[in-house]
Amino acid sequence: MKQWNVVITGFGTVGKQAARLLAQRQGYYREKYDADVRLVGAARSTSALYDANGLGEEALLEWGASGKRVDTTFSGYEFLASSHADILIETGPSDLKTGGPGLIYIKQALEQGMHAIAVSKGALVVDFAGLSALAKQKGVHLKISGATAAALPTIDLLQYNFAGCQILGIEGVFTGTTNFVLTKMMEEGITSEEAILRAQQMGIAEPDPSFDIDGWDTACKVTILANAAFDAQVKLSDVSRASVREVTDEQIAAWKAAGLTPKLIGSIQKTPQGIKAAVELQAVDAAHPFATVKGTTKAVRVETDVMGELLVIGGKSDPVAAAAAALKDLEHIIRGQRAY
Amino acid sequence: MKQWNVVITGFGTVGKQAARLLAQRQGYYREKYDADVRLVGAARSTSALYDANGLGEEALLEWGASGKRVDTTFSGYEFLASSHADILIETGPSDLKTGGPGLIYIKQALEQGMHAIAVSKGALVVDFAGLSALAKQKGVHLKISGATAAALPTIDLLQYNFAGCQILGIEGVFTGTTNFVLTKMMEEGITSEEAILRAQQMGIAEPDPSFDIDGWDTACKVTILANAAFDAQVKLSDVSRASVREVTDEQIAAWKAAGLTPKLIGSIQKTPQGIKAAVELQAVDAAHPFATVKGTTKAVRVETDVMGELLVIGGKSDPVAAAAAALKDLEHIIRGQRAY
Repeated sequence: MKQWNVVITGFGTVGKQAARLLAQRQGYYREKYDADVRLVGAARSTSALYDANGLGEEALLEWGASGKRVDTTFSGYEFLASSHADILIETGPSDLKTGGPGLIYIKQALEQGMHAIAVSKGALVVDFAGLSALAKQKGVHLKISGATAAALPTIDLLQYNFAGCQILGIEGVFTGTTNFVLTKMMEEGITSEEAILRAQQMGIAEPDPSFDIDGWDTACKVTILANAAFDAQVKLSDVSRASVREVTDEQIAAWKAAGLTPKLIGSIQKTPQGIKAAVELQAVDAAHPFATVKGTTKAVRVETDVMGELLVIGGKSDPVAAAAAALKDLEHIIRGQRAY
Repeated sequence: MKQWNVVITGFGTVGKQAARLLAQRQGYYREKYDADVRLVGAARSTSALYDANGLGEEALLEWGASGKRVDTTFSGYEFLASSHADILIETGPSDLKTGGPGLIYIKQALEQGMHAIAVSKGALVVDFAGLSALAKQKGVHLKISGATAAALPTIDLLQYNFAGCQILGIEGVFTGTTNFVLTKMMEEGITSEEAILRAQQMGIAEPDPSFDIDGWDTACKVTILANAAFDAQVKLSDVSRASVREVTDEQIAAWKAAGLTPKLIGSIQKTPQGIKAAVELQAVDAAHPFATVKGTTKAVRVETDVMGELLVIGGKSDPVAAAAAALKDLEHIIRGQRAY
């Protein structure tokens, strides 16, 4: 039985769910793949836990509750170097300027010959090309489902389900939070501030909602997808961006009167000038496939040359679903199904 | 550069399109996978063409136009045995009782250590379990996208996009022809006979439309999916079936009055009594996700434990798209991405 040692960095909400699901699925991995998959390490900004025999739920809970610095000599670098892990799952916060610790961890993991699964977006936004080339050079996988709409398949569609097709374009409602805010404004006639507050109260929006609300989340996703699946060299700063915060009551009233529905739509199109990625606030009519995509529901539409068009709606938008998307990537790694 | 020799059996409409696409993509395969993919053989019921250096378009056209028995000593068995091919694409007519020549070809190919891609359904309906076990024993792939809604991903969703999730159920509008007939009856107030005739005139329905119209096509797809993705032992005769032919003008009028839309829905559900596969004519209300799926458009809805629900609509329903689905399978084989 092959042993797969896993470490999770940036151990927060999604990391905890990934650890829980992974423990739950150990029997399944053994039976289906003859694989002994164990979580041997977990690290957050100031401390880390490590056990070559696998971290139990209790140890993780105690560590999570304590908040204390378990390993006083902690350094992320040493942690990864000494972990002898096979797979890194990086779930930390996204630093869109430098890539932050996530970029350092993923780069180091790949350099050490580990496979890497990114849930956080910062590293991929800042240097997808570099990381991808490094993974290729080392013969390991770099998987990104968790960073590109998670339970809603996006990179899968482009690289797996439509293998061999020419992708003519892709557009999507990629951020559940913004769609929730727009839906509430339309359906309940509240302002964007009120709708954002509502989303925060329901745990849908972060305390600082800017990343989602101001279009950064969608912009990150289209940047990563453009570079990963269209061989583009798109920078986050190249992507036009729109904020749901700017939507006024007057606009909402006008859209309603015209039978239109506002959606924050991320898109990637092939143009004569090359790949164009954008985030725009569009008011779509009732016949548009995104018109009925409401609340936190996400959606993506892909247009191809010979297989036609595909509209995909759904996929849960919670930490468990994000963790499950990362473990889907992990399972593809165990199967040897690398990204293309 | 690794050489991949391909043969196509049951060389008809889809087979021709597969040959054309394959020729078109040879440069792409070389560049992307360092793979020299060539069509070395093509066979139909009474004759076969073979060229170890690859069949050119002209040779195929001439053979197709002539209809003559090129190889007078033709036997499918000898053809496959002497082809030294790596991949079989079987696109012949479906014999739902015996599996027909398709079953013989696929079985023989697997036994010879060839990978097999099924577009026709007969062999899979009759003996998926046997073929799958044989493929496993020989360490080769058995791929079935072309036989399970082609450009609309179904088996992909269950085995790849949702890897690790528990699939709670799946339902779909799996047959474009029946959906076209029902849509025409609802929208134009014509009888099922008239709608079927219209579909035949447009090349959507076969001269003998029974396979689609009487629910066999949908029943085949759910039978294959149940056995391939749910580890079930469903026989085609276990699947309840409904025919679009039986829909009366009175029913249509009543559904219209009630704001309902009839759909031929294939489904697979986990029940306490095991896996249940069914084909039913359901009148769905306007809020149902299939209500807006019109004409030849297909759709599938999958419900999972932790990733939520996914609704997928679209994927072209023509011979080119079916061929492209088979070549997607071929590309996964080249990548070493076998089915799970």
